Amino acid sequence: MVIMTSSLTFEPVLERIAEEIEHTPGRGRPADYIPALAAGDPRRFGMAVAEVDGTVYGVGDWREPFSTQSVTKVFTLALDLAREGDELWAHVGREPSGNAFNSLVQLEYEDGIPRNPFINAGALVVTDRLLTRTGDAAGTLLDFLRTESGNGALDFDLEVAASETAHGDRNAALAHFMASYGNIHNPVPLLLDQYFKQCSVRASCADLALATAFLARHGVRADGSRLFTRSQAKQVNAVMLTCGTYDAAGDFAYRVGLPGKSGVGGGIVAVVPGRCTLCVWSPGLDDRGNSVAGVAALDRFTTLTGLSVF
Amino acid sequence: MVIMTSSLTFEPVLERIAEEIEHTPGRGRPADYIPALAAGDPRRFGMAVAEVDGTVYGVGDWREPFSTQSVTKVFTLALDLAREGDELWAHVGREPSGNAFNSLVQLEYEDGIPRNPFINAGALVVTDRLLTRTGDAAGTLLDFLRTESGNGALDFDLEVAASETAHGDRNAALAHFMASYGNIHNPVPLLLDQYFKQCSVRASCADLALATAFLARHGVRADGSRLFTRSQAKQVNAVMLTCGTYDAAGDFAYRVGLPGKSGVGGGIVAVVPGRCTLCVWSPGLDDRGNSVAGVAALDRFTTLTGLSVF
Amino acid sequence: MVIMTSSLTFEPVLERIAEEIEHTPGRGRPADYIPALAAGDPRRFGMAVAEVDGTVYGVGDWREPFSTQSVTKVFTLALDLAREGDELWAHVGREPSGNAFNSLVQLEYEDGIPRNPFINAGALVVTDRLLTRTGDAAGTLLDFLRTESGNGALDFDLEVAASETAHGDRNAALAHFMASYGNIHNPVPLLLDQYFKQCSVRASCADLALATAFLARHGVRADGSRLFTRSQAKQVNAVMLTCGTYDAAGDFAYRVGLPGKSGVGGGIVAVVPGRCTLCVWSPGLDDRGNSVAGVAALDRFTTLTGLSVF
Amino acid sequence: MVIMTSSLTFEPVLERIAEEIEHTPGRGRPADYIPALAAGDPRRFGMAVAEVDGTVYGVGDWREPFSTQSVTKVFTLALDLAREGDELWAHVGREPSGNAFNSLVQLEYEDGIPRNPFINAGALVVTDRLLTRTGDAAGTLLDFLRTESGNGALDFDLEVAASETAHGDRNAALAHFMASYGNIHNPVPLLLDQYFKQCSVRASCADLALATAFLARHGVRADGSRLFTRSQAKQVNAVMLTCGTYDAAGDFAYRVGLPGKSGVGGGIVAVVPGRCTLCVWSPGLDDRGNSVAGVAALDRFTTLTGLSVF
Repeated sequence: MVIMTSSLTFEPVLERIAEEIEHTPGRGRPADYIPALAAGDPRRFGMAVAEVDGTVYGVGDWREPFSTQSVTKVFTLALDLAREGDELWAHVGREPSGNAFNSLVQLEYEDGIPRNPFINAGALVVTDRLLTRTGDAAGTLLDFLRTESGNGALDFDLEVAASETAHGDRNAALAHFMASYGNIHNPVPLLLDQYFKQCSVRASCADLALATAFLARHGVRADGSRLFTRSQAKQVNAVMLTCGTYDAAGDFAYRVGLPGKSGVGGGIVAVVPGRCTLCVWSPGLDDRGNSVAGVAALDRFTTLTGLSVF
Repeated sequence: MVIMTSSLTFEPVLERIAEEIEHTPGRGRPADYIPALAAGDPRRFGMAVAEVDGTVYGVGDWREPFSTQSVTKVFTLALDLAREGDELWAHVGREPSGNAFNSLVQLEYEDGIPRNPFINAGALVVTDRLLTRTGDAAGTLLDFLRTESGNGALDFDLEVAASETAHGDRNAALAHFMASYGNIHNPVPLLLDQYFKQCSVRASCADLALATAFLARHGVRADGSRLFTRSQAKQVNAVMLTCGTYDAAGDFAYRVGLPGKSGVGGGIVAVVPGRCTLCVWSPGLDDRGNSVAGVAALDRFTTLTGLSVF
Repeated sequence: MVIMTSSLTFEPVLERIAEEIEHTPGRGRPADYIPALAAGDPRRFGMAVAEVDGTVYGVGDWREPFSTQSVTKVFTLALDLAREGDELWAHVGREPSGNAFNSLVQLEYEDGIPRNPFINAGALVVTDRLLTRTGDAAGTLLDFLRTESGNGALDFDLEVAASETAHGDRNAALAHFMASYGNIHNPVPLLLDQYFKQCSVRASCADLALATAFLARHGVRADGSRLFTRSQAKQVNAVMLTCGTYDAAGDFAYRVGLPGKSGVGGGIVAVVPGRCTLCVWSPGLDDRGNSVAGVAALDRFTTLTGLSVF
Repeated sequence: MVIMTSSLTFEPVLERIAEEIEHTPGRGRPADYIPALAAGDPRRFGMAVAEVDGTVYGVGDWREPFSTQSVTKVFTLALDLAREGDELWAHVGREPSGNAFNSLVQLEYEDGIPRNPFINAGALVVTDRLLTRTGDAAGTLLDFLRTESGNGALDFDLEVAASETAHGDRNAALAHFMASYGNIHNPVPLLLDQYFKQCSVRASCADLALATAFLARHGVRADGSRLFTRSQAKQVNAVMLTCGTYDAAGDFAYRVGLPGKSGVGGGIVAVVPGRCTLCVWSPGLDDRGNSVAGVAALDRFTTLTGLSVF
């Protein structure tokens, strides 16, 4: 049942979703592999919508900063793609990866080329390449997020980054493994430092919805300049839909039907091409690493508005 | 560049695409694992569009019957889903499968539950379940295709089915393997007979575009009755987008940006939700089993019309 | 501590081992995948020694027939090797297989060539080849066992064979999978019938110790004729040591230090080259499918006699 | 055909083998992943025998130092086992690993516990543990080799070690991966430094045959003291036989029939328990990393002397 597609804003829809979520039991559990994330409260919930004209509004904790984590992989991908274009795809694929279990064997089977830019191995490759091009991948990302969100106070959380580094053996293994195939070009410790800084950025639903809006605008940034081509924007959306939510991409497409990218901090961004972007946050995760309340809220959004791409 | 989205028909677009394809070198090679397919001529090309109102038109060999093969998996899925609903998803997943290489180990790792209904293992499970419910899965499929296409002459190609059976050891292995986990309920030889009959149906682009139109109509059949719910139609589209083109689903989403399902006979169906369906055919395949000219034609279609879901 | 290596017989050693085993708690559990095996009593224990001169003696239930199961794979291997020689090794490897988990992916990775003749896939290949050469692999095996043991009453247990067939989907999957690579030449149902008949043979420790003695005699049969060359006997022993006890071959070599082959009926045969053969039986299995009391008894035997090959 | 088992020395056998090898075409290719090894000349060949009484003799280049590489894994294993006993086996298995392809997925499947101490992952665990216990694993190894061989001039080749470090990404990946499971306890860079130093030791066939003799003496060192128990010596021999020659352990057992350990420098040590040890060297490798002439020479040795354990 579609209740609204033509109103000026989605505010009533957000209010209704927040109310439903409020009364939904079962919120999952926060990520627990580093202490900073384990303290997340699954009762927290925020949701923001950014229209393509830059209007932003939300409900709940939509202005509360949280740890963006893998949500930043979307921006790093776009920033690198804008610089090197299709050359990137010789070094990272754009196919879904199947389940996490296969990650290493697939990497071995495919000669150190990760399946897509959103699994950790692929994001490490993208960061490595952006680092080579810019000299500071994490700084380039932060500048972009600050500019697009209009929030100059956005910053890294160096405590979180340090904690990730201390638990970073698996990412170090991935990076060294790809380096053995010649697919990593910077020293692994430097790369990991950049990678963990990127993941540590703290931002709110409002910030991230605004920062993602260039994808709803087919590549046009907040200041009207173009980050990359319309075709590239479409491509990033396609990769988000097929690979953006870990091993639940099929389920997310099935339930939500929008390009989306999640992070273990509990955030998810989603794109309604040509119309708006969404960011939802709630720290409780399901067993595949996606925010339980976040996915539920997006599911309700597309059901109520009919704005699924399908 | 979008040249047309509001005209009454897409005929000029199809003409233009056919002309471009005509002049494109490199058409891939026909499937060669059975003689009947190996004889396919890569120079053949047809494309049809069916509007949601039932209008159909096309270019090239769009009325030439060809071997539908895995394209039929869409219909079998829809027909079973219409009967048993979400219960199906306890027996087959809806996540992309990663590369073909992993198919067996994933099946083993996940206790005989295939990743999605479009890999062979998953299609065998769907056929097995439809067979249990109807007593004749292949017949149920054929009836549906005849009715939706309005072409009562559609039929199995029993010579092709026999040839598939003679080369069917790998599918027999998959079926027995899943049976060892209790996920196949009919005798394997009977199941394979039904499965290969389904794949053998011969139909044209016109037939298949019309037969797929219920997905563009959100579940409504040609006679106005409803096959299944709007939500189920959306779900089938989502599974097509993430899993419909073998190990090239990401690439297909990236280039074409529509839900689609391909077959090794060289056919591909695609859905523009709420608007129309497409079917393209050309027997030459790329190394991942998708029609080279078919994917190129769909790529051009969404580029020229802007009708990608992204 | 070596207590005896030069006495005329090992009878005192067997008596001591039987007494120790009697007082050892924890006997594992019988195989439960078919009813006929699930009824096995873990308290049963028998052990026999056959000297190279044909003398045989034992303790406990050493004359009690039991289901030989995979122990027969040694004889099938020897019988086929005697017929086709090294040609066999183009169709089955002789390397350990790593853990069971990898069986299917290894088979896929290595183009349908199983790692060794003692995993099920490899034994199916050997049976298929012996079947092609003799027209009746199971009958050839039974004749050999009867002749070498001097026990003309040995026979198949057709009830067990039927039960195996009814639970045979995994072996059917392996056979069809290898057939898809051209590595199985008989119809799969016929092959499985032969395979399960072989496994169903009932024999006692006395029978099996005698039937294995040709390996301790470097290839010479009970009647003084030669089954195959000294070098081939050494090769079979080597394959037994590295691959004979499922995924516990390393552990068996480490603890027992003799070529051995186990079955899920609880039997194990072992070879002391140039000296004697052993067969032990107790139905309780460990989690890798080897008889708990059987391995313990062989471990004690080599410790007490110093007759490990290491 | 056995020509000699009771003579005082094996010198005539060695002479004959050297002559045969001299006239055998096809010597394989030296390892080429680091320049220092790539320079090896496949025409070089040496072979030494050390009797349990300490007598040593040889043919060809048996006094020429070469890069020991993985041959040192035997000594590191023995040195750690002597210190911590069976506790080691909670951290590394003793089962063959199947083919190299599976190494990473097996490590993942088995929670960071490598299959055996002779694959790289397992040797890293053993070195890590010896390092924790001694503070200097490489130094402990070097002392042992010098003492047992009586050659105080043995030393690391720091140029080779540096070259290995520069190409060490894959080992770094393994170490970090196991560290993520808590199975590595020292900093990865320190561990790799120790590991590559161990592998870099240069020694001759004479040195290594003497240094290995404690295994033929069931644990007794050159000075008559005991390194570890008779049972532990038997266990190391068993692990060598089942896991000592990469993915050719089955083939090595089949052809040679002795516990052995090879290295990519072209050296192989082998043990005839209770009798003697052998070391052979020739830099040309087969496609599984074992010296072509080395395996051939050992094969001839056991054929000529009948001293296979089988």
